[in-house]
Amino acid sequence: MPDVVSSTDHPTRTRKLAISDAERARRLNRVREELEALNLDALVLFHPERIGYLSSFVFVSTERPMALVIPRRGELGMLIPQLEEDHLKKSPDIADVQVYPEYPSGPGGRHPMHHLRELLDRKRLLGRRLGVDSDGYGDVNGYGGPTVAQINGEGSVVLARELVDKLRQVKSAAELDLIRESCTWGNLAHRLLQKHMAIGKTEIEVGLAATSEAILIMLDTLGTSYTSQSRGFRNPPVSASFIAGANTALPHGMRRGQGLRPGDAIITGASSDIGGYHSELERTMMVGEPTREFCEYFEAMLGVQEAGFRAVRPGRTCADVEADVQAEIARRGFSHLTRHHTGHGIGLEGHERPFLDLGDETELKPGMVFSIEPGLYVPGVAGFRHSDTVIVTEDGCEVATFYPRDLASLIV
Amino acid sequence: MPDVVSSTDHPTRTRKLAISDAERARRLNRVREELEALNLDALVLFHPERIGYLSSFVFVSTERPMALVIPRRGELGMLIPQLEEDHLKKSPDIADVQVYPEYPSGPGGRHPMHHLRELLDRKRLLGRRLGVDSDGYGDVNGYGGPTVAQINGEGSVVLARELVDKLRQVKSAAELDLIRESCTWGNLAHRLLQKHMAIGKTEIEVGLAATSEAILIMLDTLGTSYTSQSRGFRNPPVSASFIAGANTALPHGMRRGQGLRPGDAIITGASSDIGGYHSELERTMMVGEPTREFCEYFEAMLGVQEAGFRAVRPGRTCADVEADVQAEIARRGFSHLTRHHTGHGIGLEGHERPFLDLGDETELKPGMVFSIEPGLYVPGVAGFRHSDTVIVTEDGCEVATFYPRDLASLIV
Repeated sequence: MPDVVSSTDHPTRTRKLAISDAERARRLNRVREELEALNLDALVLFHPERIGYLSSFVFVSTERPMALVIPRRGELGMLIPQLEEDHLKKSPDIADVQVYPEYPSGPGGRHPMHHLRELLDRKRLLGRRLGVDSDGYGDVNGYGGPTVAQINGEGSVVLARELVDKLRQVKSAAELDLIRESCTWGNLAHRLLQKHMAIGKTEIEVGLAATSEAILIMLDTLGTSYTSQSRGFRNPPVSASFIAGANTALPHGMRRGQGLRPGDAIITGASSDIGGYHSELERTMMVGEPTREFCEYFEAMLGVQEAGFRAVRPGRTCADVEADVQAEIARRGFSHLTRHHTGHGIGLEGHERPFLDLGDETELKPGMVFSIEPGLYVPGVAGFRHSDTVIVTEDGCEVATFYPRDLASLIV
Repeated sequence: MPDVVSSTDHPTRTRKLAISDAERARRLNRVREELEALNLDALVLFHPERIGYLSSFVFVSTERPMALVIPRRGELGMLIPQLEEDHLKKSPDIADVQVYPEYPSGPGGRHPMHHLRELLDRKRLLGRRLGVDSDGYGDVNGYGGPTVAQINGEGSVVLARELVDKLRQVKSAAELDLIRESCTWGNLAHRLLQKHMAIGKTEIEVGLAATSEAILIMLDTLGTSYTSQSRGFRNPPVSASFIAGANTALPHGMRRGQGLRPGDAIITGASSDIGGYHSELERTMMVGEPTREFCEYFEAMLGVQEAGFRAVRPGRTCADVEADVQAEIARRGFSHLTRHHTGHGIGLEGHERPFLDLGDETELKPGMVFSIEPGLYVPGVAGFRHSDTVIVTEDGCEVATFYPRDLASLIV
């Protein structure tokens, strides 16, 4: 029956806002090529973002350690607590699973890291040359235990998180689509935030109303194409919030309890998690008529941010971008008003490598994604910062966030 | 003027739901006594919860490392990025501050860990015997850098996080008050959650409505006595959510998109952050008439949880409690339905040491706080788990959460 195409050859596909199995398989191949090049026998990963990048298993770190073992050749291995056993069954790409009963140990009395040792032993990796993203599981929720070096006997252990993080720095077309989709929903949340702002309303009530509305609209709109990977509200699918008044003069200002008053400066933030990918949208706003002084700093901030956009193109380095932005700030005489560098990478994490910083010599490549958010912090006046998400293109950058940036559009 | 009392002797106090400076000073003294006993010259802490336990500085970890240095004698030292400089000024207990421009390095090109080296050098601690909670800053948001051992020259570095975590295990009267207050607001959020549940309503819409209402009511009620330490929605002041249907059979089930249907099992969760302290409240519920089978597992779960409450008293160990609970589950013939141990410590973290686990020989002491949440997970039926927050007393335990536990009260 050579001409009959079976349904497994051409399966029906339903649109999903998620990375495909095929793309994850390509990532894995690249990691294995690197293992070959570095003469490492396997890579052991503990960080949930790296594990989720290379497998279909998504989880939140707690005191119960988990680890993905990627041998140079052969099947993926995974250390999980019994608690996650049913959850992991949805990840058919992970074939060799070592389940431990509990942390610290449960019945039988063996620490989870000794179960990892057993997994490595079974995969003939014990005592070999292992790359790790950390030498043991992190300092999370009271976890404590031996390092990989301590369980690996005579073998060597090499810190090799770059091996994954370098791949993560350059996003594929599919990743960029998810990030653009994240920008779209962040834009909605921000629009709702602005609509709810009014004299007397607090940061909390406006943020809650906008976030709740945006979540419900987004989930109704995306329907089954959206796969939530979060449990509870720690990582909402989309959210928006702001700080107001003198607090804006601190780069990471805290919320006040009071309501908005005429003359308050505002710094907002909105984002969305689409298939695990993020974006960043922040705006400086004003309640009522801005003073001449406010307008001047605002225009300066806009000019500096535009210098940031212009500075981004392939072949330059992260440090070059920061140098251009610092030069523009210095030209305007405002170097004393800066508190941080121009921006950071964005992807599976809201902040990730590389950084637009004088100390980061990473070369810009098409597909990298950054926040561009140089800020001016004027004591006694306000903080001035827009943040936009940009994608490095062949000859410059695409500003993926599209909320208005001009002051007239940002007056409450 | 010996009889005149100055206002600094008797300052006006406004009620605050927070730990006092005096209590933090006592904690610090105990840590210093331990440093003396262990012959350590200083303790270097990177974890924000430990730093917040011993100082007034509260922050969220990002790629920019921060560290608190506690010398055996002399003033506290702190490493911070320039971004946090104004924020730290509100923490007068930290006298000796080393500010670095940016991560990875900013102008001048020195890594933040070399600024930590400078701070240690200035405090005459370099090359001495240092305790640390981790040997360097964690794997957060793309951070990378040297360990403390690498910057400490000829000196030794000892992993000593227990030194703080052991103190944290036994809560003071003030800490217990904050945890009880957290239980109260978790109770409100859970009541609102139950009120909003209805056929056709989704986990997301019910959870958002209950959480938003609870936050606004709590902040209005507590007013200026409440100090929010969070920025944005990552750690809401109070929240409630649930999962429904077959997902409940997974201990950490994910949310579905569908609305509630008759016959759905529900597992809820509610908590609140009061002065940085947490509590845990979870309930198993049913939409409509429960089956006989559901009732039987529910009653078994209740009986097992009660065995957990009875098992908690000073002088016994965490392992003893778990053994009692496992014996009760075995007596009922349900050992094959468990997926995790009885519970975990609660305090500044939602999960923290010690753990009610066969592998944890920690002795129970008055003032320790745990979740009691043994669960039965019945494939194809539902998960059955209540979680209550208990405080170890002189002769047993106080169940600090007070939401109804009986099935009749938990039918939607």
